[in-house]
Amino acid sequence: MKILKKNEITSFKRSVDAGTEEQRAAVKEIIADVKERGDEALRSFTEKFDGVTLDNSKVGKAEIEQAYKQMDGELVEVLKEAAANIRSFHAKQKSTSWFDTQEDGTILGQKITPIDAVGVYVPGGTAAYPSSVFMNVIPAQVAGVERTAMTTPPGPEGTLPPGVLVAADILGVDEIYKVGGAQAVAALAYGTDTIAPVDKIVGPGNVFVALAKREVFGDVAIDMIAGPSEIAILADDTARPEEVAADLLSQAEHDARSSSVLVTISEFLASAVQAEVDRQLQTLPREEIARKSVEDYGAIILCESMEEAEDTINEIAPEHLEVVTSAPFEQLAKIKHAGAIFLGRYSSEPIGDYFAGPNHVLPTNGTARFSSPLNVDDFIKKSSIISYSEQAWRENHEKIARFARLEGLEAHARAVESRKETKDE
Amino acid sequence: MKILKKNEITSFKRSVDAGTEEQRAAVKEIIADVKERGDEALRSFTEKFDGVTLDNSKVGKAEIEQAYKQMDGELVEVLKEAAANIRSFHAKQKSTSWFDTQEDGTILGQKITPIDAVGVYVPGGTAAYPSSVFMNVIPAQVAGVERTAMTTPPGPEGTLPPGVLVAADILGVDEIYKVGGAQAVAALAYGTDTIAPVDKIVGPGNVFVALAKREVFGDVAIDMIAGPSEIAILADDTARPEEVAADLLSQAEHDARSSSVLVTISEFLASAVQAEVDRQLQTLPREEIARKSVEDYGAIILCESMEEAEDTINEIAPEHLEVVTSAPFEQLAKIKHAGAIFLGRYSSEPIGDYFAGPNHVLPTNGTARFSSPLNVDDFIKKSSIISYSEQAWRENHEKIARFARLEGLEAHARAVESRKETKDE
Repeated sequence: MKILKKNEITSFKRSVDAGTEEQRAAVKEIIADVKERGDEALRSFTEKFDGVTLDNSKVGKAEIEQAYKQMDGELVEVLKEAAANIRSFHAKQKSTSWFDTQEDGTILGQKITPIDAVGVYVPGGTAAYPSSVFMNVIPAQVAGVERTAMTTPPGPEGTLPPGVLVAADILGVDEIYKVGGAQAVAALAYGTDTIAPVDKIVGPGNVFVALAKREVFGDVAIDMIAGPSEIAILADDTARPEEVAADLLSQAEHDARSSSVLVTISEFLASAVQAEVDRQLQTLPREEIARKSVEDYGAIILCESMEEAEDTINEIAPEHLEVVTSAPFEQLAKIKHAGAIFLGRYSSEPIGDYFAGPNHVLPTNGTARFSSPLNVDDFIKKSSIISYSEQAWRENHEKIARFARLEGLEAHARAVESRKETKDE
Repeated sequence: MKILKKNEITSFKRSVDAGTEEQRAAVKEIIADVKERGDEALRSFTEKFDGVTLDNSKVGKAEIEQAYKQMDGELVEVLKEAAANIRSFHAKQKSTSWFDTQEDGTILGQKITPIDAVGVYVPGGTAAYPSSVFMNVIPAQVAGVERTAMTTPPGPEGTLPPGVLVAADILGVDEIYKVGGAQAVAALAYGTDTIAPVDKIVGPGNVFVALAKREVFGDVAIDMIAGPSEIAILADDTARPEEVAADLLSQAEHDARSSSVLVTISEFLASAVQAEVDRQLQTLPREEIARKSVEDYGAIILCESMEEAEDTINEIAPEHLEVVTSAPFEQLAKIKHAGAIFLGRYSSEPIGDYFAGPNHVLPTNGTARFSSPLNVDDFIKKSSIISYSEQAWRENHEKIARFARLEGLEAHARAVESRKETKDE
């Protein structure tokens, strides 16, 4: 892991995998085919991409029961506790409809309504994470979404990982379909005989899933398109090198394109963490991925002051930020852009991935400048409420008509004036 | 305007103008050119598309003063009152950072931070609306956004409409650039020497603007991509046909692709509104546009019960909904999907376009199923806060490590365990 000065860095942005022209074209074709042939198209794409022929893509009760048998009972309890923590944190985010009355009889407000139906994409293979089920489904349930449909690609035997099935069952998700890729996104967006269409699609996926979400965006809502995982750690002399190194590597093991950055004012910590990363890398099962990530996208940035260090963090706008300093809440006030902020020595990043309660679906690649973690508000929508009384209308309609005429919209002016003719009847 | 039964309608969805392949290619080229040549590219596109050569695209003080001179003083007061109403409504939406402490010392919460810089696109020509300036800028200002940059295409004389300049000045927007189209979106997204880049771009525009926003989406945030305006009116016998017709036409005059729909259980009202629309159309300055809109996308839907009528509204998920019934608040509970809901006889839709306070940037074409009016939350982002105490870590780290190992992420498990080694030092 290289040690750099702040001014040696030109940009923290990584290139986004926008897919090749061929991939884009393939995704468009898949979507068109699913729109046209529905379940038949799903069946043939599952054969082609997942290597398995499925008569019925919907997961049944027997498969869920089987999944529980394959899981350690204590681990199931851990999953349940994690789900409860996540539910509890998200419940605190819930906003309510409100209104405001004025003396002239005007009532204005916002009505909150949950989205009717949400589709959750859960990736397959080694990236099939029960935690991903929790983090995407629970905020929707807390928001009051009535229907949640989950899709995930089947393994070569036509089965799904037990952890994913148990996680879904813990939440009471009873619509699980074995279908992945762009075809799953198309089915969720436009519906087939088996899968009713949804209003919003969330959840991570490979480049085909990302491209498909981009393609259906507008017809349905989508969540953000996530990039490789990131961590930045802001640390001073009080941080322990072996802990900092371990936390950096926890993100590096995700993906060779993941990014792990230490920002510090301590020369001692910089060298010590550098050595620790090397040492710890050697015994990691995913050493190869983590090493490449650290070499290509990792850095230790040595700053001249805590202010410069805080500015550096805001420039990075990291997905995950750990603040391991003598008084981390002092830094909190200075941090403007970060997806999740972990404060203090004991707040190791994986605590947030699995257990603490806040969402692990977070803005990546600097998008924390303008995006938030997945949250309950992502699954509701607001309607404005406007109720004008006769008095309010009488006192304001002429002004409104003038404003409309300034914009050249005569029918607008006449509409608001139209009450006049009958007001004395 | 045709009268239809509910079952005679198959879909309320209109095709979205996704642009032609040529338009998409042109937009990509424009964006690439602005990225490369910056202000020089802006100058040449302004020459090409707006027919005017500008040495300096930034609006100066003298132009603002000139704009005030061209405006009626009373009208300026109306604009100020409207701005104050809009600000007051949006101020009520402001959410605050929060946190929650647990007995084991855990602190969890969400930190709210405004987006740093926002770009507002204001369309040119006949669609240059001061109200659009208010509705896009005020929520950003209320959210606490520090920098708002406005772009709008210059007219053939190189000038801007006085109403737009005065509206911007009322709000204290001092960065106004005379540049429009895809080139303006590119400049806001990536910056030039004159225009510093922003984090989010909002505001309506033509197909080139919409395509450019779609293209830069991800590098910056964008608002929704708006379609033609819509109104649905849910009315019973108590509604006055001339008022309902006038309100339907207020949306029809926007665009030949606008949609105006009356949903009613009253046969009398259906025929009377049909006749009134015909009568009122004849004297409208924008008769041609409104007539085409009413013929192509207008309808009177005659329902058999109020329940069927309410369901119909939810299927349409209209941008604007008026409820003109004997007890409109009773219907409010049944409405799930609508951008803005106008309750009662005196709540004519243009009141919301200009004056009442709620935003007029609303989800169109059924997207009210999953989208909200533009609001203060669109200009903030949240950061999760996680602070675990030593006790919380001690009690939970083994569970978290187990969960991580279930997902095959050993470095995650080791990170959360790494505190162990030093905990007794």
